[in-house]
Amino acid sequence: MNRTDANALDWASVSWVAAERTPATLRAWALSRGGTVLAKVESGEGLGATDDLAAALDRLLPGRPADVPVLVSGAGQMPAPAVPCKPPLRDAAQAAQGLLRLPGVAQQKPVDLLEGEETRVAGFVALNPRFDGVLCLPGPRQTRWVHVSAGEIVSFRSFLTGALFAMLRDLEGLAGDWDEAAFLEAVDHAMGRPAGVAGDLATVLAELRLAGLDPAAASSRALGLLLGMELAAAKPYWLGQSVALVDEANAARPWHAALAAQAVPVVLADGTRLALEGLKAAYKGT
Amino acid sequence: MNRTDANALDWASVSWVAAERTPATLRAWALSRGGTVLAKVESGEGLGATDDLAAALDRLLPGRPADVPVLVSGAGQMPAPAVPCKPPLRDAAQAAQGLLRLPGVAQQKPVDLLEGEETRVAGFVALNPRFDGVLCLPGPRQTRWVHVSAGEIVSFRSFLTGALFAMLRDLEGLAGDWDEAAFLEAVDHAMGRPAGVAGDLATVLAELRLAGLDPAAASSRALGLLLGMELAAAKPYWLGQSVALVDEANAARPWHAALAAQAVPVVLADGTRLALEGLKAAYKGT
Repeated sequence: MNRTDANALDWASVSWVAAERTPATLRAWALSRGGTVLAKVESGEGLGATDDLAAALDRLLPGRPADVPVLVSGAGQMPAPAVPCKPPLRDAAQAAQGLLRLPGVAQQKPVDLLEGEETRVAGFVALNPRFDGVLCLPGPRQTRWVHVSAGEIVSFRSFLTGALFAMLRDLEGLAGDWDEAAFLEAVDHAMGRPAGVAGDLATVLAELRLAGLDPAAASSRALGLLLGMELAAAKPYWLGQSVALVDEANAARPWHAALAAQAVPVVLADGTRLALEGLKAAYKGT
Repeated sequence: MNRTDANALDWASVSWVAAERTPATLRAWALSRGGTVLAKVESGEGLGATDDLAAALDRLLPGRPADVPVLVSGAGQMPAPAVPCKPPLRDAAQAAQGLLRLPGVAQQKPVDLLEGEETRVAGFVALNPRFDGVLCLPGPRQTRWVHVSAGEIVSFRSFLTGALFAMLRDLEGLAGDWDEAAFLEAVDHAMGRPAGVAGDLATVLAELRLAGLDPAAASSRALGLLLGMELAAAKPYWLGQSVALVDEANAARPWHAALAAQAVPVVLADGTRLALEGLKAAYKGT
């Protein structure tokens, strides 16, 4: 997975390391004092693979001198108690090892949390300081809808869409190509009658068994139903709003198609780039 | 799991064997010509454990003579094309081995299927021939709501509540005692706003992480949200209806509490007994 081999890296020229942990991956950028990316490395040791972040970083960054600090955002950090867009930085217990963990962001009402997405939001704000609107950040487990105004997070809301779909897909062996027509029809159906989704999912599985429904269509319909339920509940976040959709490896494509079908103007942003920009902005603030 | 040891069984007195396969278990009753249960055995080789039903039955019933037929209902049989309450019986390919598989029941609109529940329904009808109303059969994967009139299945609808809850519970490590107050509040909340369930589930998980929510309350609330969504969509099945709730090992308790809170009069029926009665009724018809 390494785009650049960390073993070949001249650590003497590295000023600090920006790192992001997601549920599935751990990625890091070695940066010069001027902010140039000298190396980018990635491993599968995300939150799901290990609890020991320090050890996973050591494996990802062999030979890193102790005086090259790593600033890491992402899943598994205890969040800050408030909702600042620029969260407090240093974790005293870890700072001695040169490991600075960015906490997530906690919200009181409704209780909710961001675990790394706040850093991507900060990166987007750094690149688009005048942005007033909503960021939609689909993830492998949760989608986060984040309302941003005047450079601050105003409120946010998480939906378990990704996790529910992944569980269904694994349980029922749903797989196959993307069927956009089936997907969009299901989104539309679920938005109109979101209460029926648990029954409509059972219908998809029954059609797969009985009526020879194509597995690709079944998979796309199941995601469409779950995403339609999400869009119905997240309506205050996208209706009449300027929406920036944060993509990574084309995973946001279903959200893009569904929002386009609702005639919502959507700007696409690259999640990995936002993470790096957010980490840079946070490092400046340390 | 054997309640009676099949090895100690005098096969000479056994006329036939009634068996039921569920997603989790395989159980069988050895019956005399007069219908007396001579032995009851059970193993974990349900649909999830093996595809080879014949081999699993051989392991469950060692020493069974080839001329003692086994009539089996349950998950994994290809269903009949129509919606009869007394489905056709013999599977020609298997009959030679003394294995008679009861097919499930298929419905065309909406596409749906019963996979063993139809035999429990037939058992209920055999015991309550005048029943006109709805059977609710919660299962580890799906809940089936079945409208019965004049001894026939009129229509039915499946909901993926059990599977979704099991996946969430495993994913998030939800566990603990039953918290009925938290459960009922969540049912009520979700019935009023079923579209919000994917977001409300995310709130439960966030409160578990951030606000010190008791895991028992979290688990009960998550099930309450999913069950509230089911009840909202299944309303035509229970509103103003006479409902028989088919229980097994107290698994239907949440449905009982939720329906009682809606002031729905509910009769409890023992699922395992209904399976045996349904198999007996079907065997008479062979």
